[in-house]
Amino acid sequence: MPNKPLSRATLGRLPEYISYLRLSVEGPMVSAATMARALGYGEVLVRRDLNAVCAAGRPKVGFPVEVLMADIEEALGVNDIAPVVVVGAGRLGRALQQHRGFRQYGFEIVAGFDINPHKWQPEWDHPVLPMEELSSFCRENEIRMGIITVPAAAAQQVCDSLVDCGITAIWNFAPCRLSVPEHVTLKQEDLALSLAHLSLQARLREKE
Amino acid sequence: MPNKPLSRATLGRLPEYISYLRLSVEGPMVSAATMARALGYGEVLVRRDLNAVCAAGRPKVGFPVEVLMADIEEALGVNDIAPVVVVGAGRLGRALQQHRGFRQYGFEIVAGFDINPHKWQPEWDHPVLPMEELSSFCRENEIRMGIITVPAAAAQQVCDSLVDCGITAIWNFAPCRLSVPEHVTLKQEDLALSLAHLSLQARLREKE
Repeated sequence: MPNKPLSRATLGRLPEYISYLRLSVEGPMVSAATMARALGYGEVLVRRDLNAVCAAGRPKVGFPVEVLMADIEEALGVNDIAPVVVVGAGRLGRALQQHRGFRQYGFEIVAGFDINPHKWQPEWDHPVLPMEELSSFCRENEIRMGIITVPAAAAQQVCDSLVDCGITAIWNFAPCRLSVPEHVTLKQEDLALSLAHLSLQARLREKE
Repeated sequence: MPNKPLSRATLGRLPEYISYLRLSVEGPMVSAATMARALGYGEVLVRRDLNAVCAAGRPKVGFPVEVLMADIEEALGVNDIAPVVVVGAGRLGRALQQHRGFRQYGFEIVAGFDINPHKWQPEWDHPVLPMEELSSFCRENEIRMGIITVPAAAAQQVCDSLVDCGITAIWNFAPCRLSVPEHVTLKQEDLALSLAHLSLQARLREKE
């Protein structure tokens, strides 16, 4: 992997590249042109990104897939597994806890938390712990990322608790806007909005 | 609501506008400038979109929130509830079936399907039915949208079944690429990729 620091924009596209390489590429070599077409980016842009992260590309031949993937994974820091907590052990929270796809991107949801004692399962592979333990757990395990799957009415309070615990990246599935301090990165997931977008695309296509 | 047909681009932004209006606006009036700032669009663009969909805007005053929301909802077709099926009644499938947010965007997940007889619950509020009934159910109920939450190995087969049943919009949560015919709109959901993006944003912010 080349030593020059990667630009913010290049880094932002790496997860898409790795996803494409993992899911769609067959054979030992891949070209920037093929990837650009598949992902809807310009060919020059993709070639520049890939050359910035991987020195093994050859003109007219492309990149060896295994080397390219390893270099992108190293750039992404995927090889250090980052621990994540989820607050809210309802169906969605439990589904995320057991989702197998996170690990190959370098994440592991190490624990869930819930206020409801009936949900506490400290002995399980995917443990669910009392909310009271959130703070000590996060500090002891140096957790930086948290997921919120509680009802909207409780989400801001949970968000504040996560921030107090030292979490700097929050993924919110509750259908409400949250306020976070400047140093915290917040991603709002709106499943219904995603479905609305899909529906609209399908309707527009039907009219074509 | 004005009668001129809306552009594809305007229609595509309406779900974001309605999401913003529902979650973030307090008070009876809202201006295009405020919405543009909050959503990261240009003010001229947002004003043009809103005027295309709602005739009640006034210079320097803005739009009455209730009227604007009603007009956007009408344009989106939210008032006709569209039925959706989900295939795969694991934790994620069940979580989506019971997710409360879909209805306010005009969607209802009317049934789940699974190959495992232990998961069949035809009597429940959110029924889970045998896969064998997928085709007749979709045809009888004129279903156009389907969600896939089965394991990756089964996803293409499920996708083909949905297409055969007349589904034209598919939302895939399985971690694999799917092939669909030209007339079908496919949205690939990659939860791990979303988490990777969030992590990256947080890391870049820490370095700032």
